[in-house]
Amino acid sequence: MLSELKKEVCAANRALETSGLVKLTWGNVSGIDRASGLWCIKPSGVPYAELTLDDLVVLDLDGKIVEGRLRPSSDTRTHLHLYREFADIGGITHTHSPYATIFAQASRELPCYGTTHADHFFGTVPVARSLTKAEIDHDYEHHTGVAIVECFHKLRLKPLEMPAVLQACHAPFTWGKNAKDSLNNSIALEMCAQMALGSLQLDPTLSAIPAHVLQKHHDRKHGREAYYGQKQQAPHEWR
Amino acid sequence: MLSELKKEVCAANRALETSGLVKLTWGNVSGIDRASGLWCIKPSGVPYAELTLDDLVVLDLDGKIVEGRLRPSSDTRTHLHLYREFADIGGITHTHSPYATIFAQASRELPCYGTTHADHFFGTVPVARSLTKAEIDHDYEHHTGVAIVECFHKLRLKPLEMPAVLQACHAPFTWGKNAKDSLNNSIALEMCAQMALGSLQLDPTLSAIPAHVLQKHHDRKHGREAYYGQKQQAPHEWR
Amino acid sequence: MLSELKKEVCAANRALETSGLVKLTWGNVSGIDRASGLWCIKPSGVPYAELTLDDLVVLDLDGKIVEGRLRPSSDTRTHLHLYREFADIGGITHTHSPYATIFAQASRELPCYGTTHADHFFGTVPVARSLTKAEIDHDYEHHTGVAIVECFHKLRLKPLEMPAVLQACHAPFTWGKNAKDSLNNSIALEMCAQMALGSLQLDPTLSAIPAHVLQKHHDRKHGREAYYGQKQQAPHEWR
Amino acid sequence: MLSELKKEVCAANRALETSGLVKLTWGNVSGIDRASGLWCIKPSGVPYAELTLDDLVVLDLDGKIVEGRLRPSSDTRTHLHLYREFADIGGITHTHSPYATIFAQASRELPCYGTTHADHFFGTVPVARSLTKAEIDHDYEHHTGVAIVECFHKLRLKPLEMPAVLQACHAPFTWGKNAKDSLNNSIALEMCAQMALGSLQLDPTLSAIPAHVLQKHHDRKHGREAYYGQKQQAPHEWR
Repeated sequence: MLSELKKEVCAANRALETSGLVKLTWGNVSGIDRASGLWCIKPSGVPYAELTLDDLVVLDLDGKIVEGRLRPSSDTRTHLHLYREFADIGGITHTHSPYATIFAQASRELPCYGTTHADHFFGTVPVARSLTKAEIDHDYEHHTGVAIVECFHKLRLKPLEMPAVLQACHAPFTWGKNAKDSLNNSIALEMCAQMALGSLQLDPTLSAIPAHVLQKHHDRKHGREAYYGQKQQAPHEWR
Repeated sequence: MLSELKKEVCAANRALETSGLVKLTWGNVSGIDRASGLWCIKPSGVPYAELTLDDLVVLDLDGKIVEGRLRPSSDTRTHLHLYREFADIGGITHTHSPYATIFAQASRELPCYGTTHADHFFGTVPVARSLTKAEIDHDYEHHTGVAIVECFHKLRLKPLEMPAVLQACHAPFTWGKNAKDSLNNSIALEMCAQMALGSLQLDPTLSAIPAHVLQKHHDRKHGREAYYGQKQQAPHEWR
Repeated sequence: MLSELKKEVCAANRALETSGLVKLTWGNVSGIDRASGLWCIKPSGVPYAELTLDDLVVLDLDGKIVEGRLRPSSDTRTHLHLYREFADIGGITHTHSPYATIFAQASRELPCYGTTHADHFFGTVPVARSLTKAEIDHDYEHHTGVAIVECFHKLRLKPLEMPAVLQACHAPFTWGKNAKDSLNNSIALEMCAQMALGSLQLDPTLSAIPAHVLQKHHDRKHGREAYYGQKQQAPHEWR
Repeated sequence: MLSELKKEVCAANRALETSGLVKLTWGNVSGIDRASGLWCIKPSGVPYAELTLDDLVVLDLDGKIVEGRLRPSSDTRTHLHLYREFADIGGITHTHSPYATIFAQASRELPCYGTTHADHFFGTVPVARSLTKAEIDHDYEHHTGVAIVECFHKLRLKPLEMPAVLQACHAPFTWGKNAKDSLNNSIALEMCAQMALGSLQLDPTLSAIPAHVLQKHHDRKHGREAYYGQKQQAPHEWR
């Protein structure tokens, strides 16, 4: 069941460690097959290097486990809520990568300070509020998803234009068209956070880049006439 | 003698280097078999990559060497005192990992600024005072242990709830249920210290996370109804 | 066609990743054969580890693709303009390496704070202005090159004496006598930026090194009587 | 000739790169055979991974090349002066390692902020002044050595108690009983500089550790009754 999806999700989970984004077992990737509504996620607490396709846990969009002998990631109900509310996303990555987490811990949003950021995130990466005691006491991980969705509705953000959030006191979540794309957005977010911290050290009053630069970089990679990469155009069309 | 324990302690010592926590020979891991009261530790000054099971030094709880042809770590008497005073710990790791040592050198305790910290350390990681001249001149490493235990008694901390300390002017010690667990706590402490330094750069007046978030993360991983990892519950119980 | 050049350019592109300068596909190297006026560059969005000689795209100095089935790097028109305007350069490297980008994002030029810098860059690495909306909307990457060349003309800089620029809001470009040399200058720039950030943390009012130290280090490596490395002199001439 | 020494010096030079202390060819290690007065050093500009025993250049204490077909390191005359003036050292390492260079660029000495430092350097690592124009114009690298020796005489420092110096505007030099020991001191210096920078971020007015802690750590590792490592005492003497 879902063997292609499982391969991609397993590879993305292993890459969490080899890319240096996570220590110990502090992160997880999931991916969804929208046709069937089935999705799979890393099991809780299993070392990345030992992870096999059979270890992945398959769930439906009601959160029912349909395959797998291991307990799913403790963050499963956050992923579930995001898949239900963000209809166009195909993969989710959660890490405690240090620089993104530095911003999350300080409840500090991440403005767009350069084109690296603009290529991946269309504007300021927002902070989702931390949870109330009641939300934490009952169904904590579900409410993490609720706070993220609430944040995106309030700021009128589109999930695929802004495929990242920093949860206050906690850490980042990213997503994308598929599992690999969500992982790449975690890598990009970590670098943007590291570079923002450094640029702020040089200039604590630094402003975000001009709107037209942001728009251009977004369109160049994600717009209707995107020309980054190999898929959208044949080489002879390049000029 | 103690072959399983030796394997674990040897692997944890080698991981000090491969995990990037130590340079040269600046760290050591030990583990104890509580049934026999015997414990083993890295020999002093031996490169990690060359360490074999036979190199480990086995001692009893009086500090007498019962096996091994090499001199034990110069920090042996600190480990000994911790095993005697903290009855429920099964392993100890000492490193000079850079970010934790940055806090120790500044005699600065490490507040809980996020859930990464809360998952491992139940509150502020304390600073044990530096030693007096008399303590240093006579049985220095023993008094390092004394200062740590004194700090824990004074703050009424439980060693397995707070498996780490920063010794002023020196470096961190961590411990855990066993040697591997103590190593993992060193890895976690180093990341928490790195992220705290960064979050403090963004906000020098940053507060610790709310008590209910700290409690939840501690319980989720260590409480009676813990649901992180694979051991406590079967997968079908997950929801 | 151009098989030696392609080998060098392919190796330099792969080294972008193995050297840690780039994440994902955030960088590209090109090299030119001045005799024929043909040059080659990385294709857009192709992972470094999978890059083969046949993947490289060969262009002429009018920007026409003369060989290659893939679309060239999205930064191709910046490279093209630099090759046309800087007649003595033989290779160009573009990265988003974190420390150099930290300075670029803050629109902060990089003064020469030490001999590491002086060995590679003859003075302050300049910042090229960010682009106007009109420049971005029409032929963006070409205008990036225009802004760099304008900056060098204005400051009367010689490209091989100052083989680097930081583009405001964006990232660095470096160049050199050939592709490998341009890559080495990216590695040097990244280290100089990292060390400058640290030295500025210790002393926010730090001055550049004295002019005679800068001149000496430049001459020692690049001057007529250079004595660094193995090429210019036989060993018996050393003293 | 000097085959054991060459093996050690070659291995130490290769370790400059694998340990992460140097990029490109920014560093060199030498070692001396005091009996014959012959010493060998890395050739200038040769990549570490390609270095062979035959590439090393052997010189006498007059600076005459007695073996080797390549030009020696451009820093050769600095090493020569140190070997002539510091009679008890057996090896020298020069790097541009980032954190030590951050302090050197800022002309900032490195106080002893913790026991990591105390284990290797007996007090504050000093800054040697930068050179005058006359010194730089004539026999630059020799005068670098002169400034270092002058600094040590002025501060009444013993080279083996303080096996490191930061040259203003430039970078660190370290030395030791032999080549490997000098390399280890470069590794230690880099970590101490990194941790000092971080501790100063937490507390810009941080003081050096108390004199009795410094003395103890120095004696524990280097004093007459040293008990660190395996050489000085048999294990049964440990308590």
